[in-house]
Amino acid sequence: MDDRPIGIFDSGIGGLTVFSEIIKALPSENIIYLGDTKQFPYGNKSKKTIIDITKENINFLIKKNVKLIVIACGTATSQALEEVKDKYNIPIIGIIKPTVMYLAKEKNIRKIGIMATAGTIRSNSWEKEIKKLMPNAKVINKACPLLAPMVEEGWTDNEIARLVIKEYVKVFKEETVDSLILGCTHYPLLKNLIQEELGNKVKIIDTGKQVGKFLEELLHKEKINGKPKNIPNYKFYLTEIEEGFIKVANNLIPNTIDNINFSKK
Amino acid sequence: MDDRPIGIFDSGIGGLTVFSEIIKALPSENIIYLGDTKQFPYGNKSKKTIIDITKENINFLIKKNVKLIVIACGTATSQALEEVKDKYNIPIIGIIKPTVMYLAKEKNIRKIGIMATAGTIRSNSWEKEIKKLMPNAKVINKACPLLAPMVEEGWTDNEIARLVIKEYVKVFKEETVDSLILGCTHYPLLKNLIQEELGNKVKIIDTGKQVGKFLEELLHKEKINGKPKNIPNYKFYLTEIEEGFIKVANNLIPNTIDNINFSKK
Repeated sequence: MDDRPIGIFDSGIGGLTVFSEIIKALPSENIIYLGDTKQFPYGNKSKKTIIDITKENINFLIKKNVKLIVIACGTATSQALEEVKDKYNIPIIGIIKPTVMYLAKEKNIRKIGIMATAGTIRSNSWEKEIKKLMPNAKVINKACPLLAPMVEEGWTDNEIARLVIKEYVKVFKEETVDSLILGCTHYPLLKNLIQEELGNKVKIIDTGKQVGKFLEELLHKEKINGKPKNIPNYKFYLTEIEEGFIKVANNLIPNTIDNINFSKK
Repeated sequence: MDDRPIGIFDSGIGGLTVFSEIIKALPSENIIYLGDTKQFPYGNKSKKTIIDITKENINFLIKKNVKLIVIACGTATSQALEEVKDKYNIPIIGIIKPTVMYLAKEKNIRKIGIMATAGTIRSNSWEKEIKKLMPNAKVINKACPLLAPMVEEGWTDNEIARLVIKEYVKVFKEETVDSLILGCTHYPLLKNLIQEELGNKVKIIDTGKQVGKFLEELLHKEKINGKPKNIPNYKFYLTEIEEGFIKVANNLIPNTIDNINFSKK
């Protein structure tokens, strides 16, 4: 047993979609969430910058005495996880491997679309991981640089969001993918619109759910579960005050964001 | 007389709007343009990062033996110009001061709207400069984080661009501004749509034109004009290959982009 909190970080509000799934899968775990709003967006930053930022965030969470870290950000997972994961003495997981492990178990998934930030698509991390476990799968990549900033603006259900999504999913319709990975943790906030635009035949894969399941197994395997029936303590840190963060958090996980710290870390 | 080229840099294609005005004002000057496409967008990066990037870009241009540098980027001007301008032995100018000097000479400008990136608005640089020369002017600020990425996507004349602009200019219509500064060099590519949405009574101020005039006077004052009737040599450097850059350049300044270098600097 291990009472220490799980650490989660993201560039902004996207990681909240992962947080909301983790607390469903692991309702007794304490969690510390770091939203690096000051350095948002990560999507177009260089690999070197993303690695530096990721190390900064990991060091912050380790000082807060976490037992495990979830990189709840597609860009940081794709650009920095490999570089950092063996440098610390606690497990560090991203969103790609858990999602692809799940995909590989599903039948009827053969043609996979990936929406992600420009940096993530450039890194080709999703496709590489998919080819390891599903060598016959076909992958269609699409960089969607406007989506994360749009979500941060709070535009998740208006005409602009609808038109931007229509434009970005065009290639997936043309290629008739059978499934679509939301490769950036901001995108689940646009899931309904994306599903509407693509139609119900396409299975949309939200990374948060898979990360939740993966984490459950990992805590068990490593014997680092928290106390059962613990009433969890959630702490949030933001590197820049963001009204949007609080608004989205209150919608996504009502009555949870009462312990928020604005800190330059 | 000074035959050395003028150096210009921006995070991407925005600076081309300044370039196109400089070559009108100074048709005999040689120019080296650096488009730091790899690190685009600057809009949301921290002040420290912007200063580091600005120094990198200045050092690159100085090695190319330029006689003067134009920071053709609203974000880098607002966050880094003050920090760097006295550290080099050539003049370094931005887009804010030339524009505000022009504004201060105009009558009937009293209520000024500013559209810019989140970083520029946060820095309050435009308002500070305006208040120095026009203490009675009223300033309405609006951060527009989606506009520069939208221009880089090439979405400058579609329904999405129209709706996004409608949303961002709402506050200027409510406040009935008499003039509007396009505080990011990407925005002149959206000028027609912005003017349509605001109506013809609002004077839209495009920084490139003012920078062109300012530069003409400065070269004269410092006695560093190039050879008159010189057939100019234009060189372009990009830190990442960007199809969009070439497309926009060919529209904005036809037959000019034949000398392009893709370099990591």
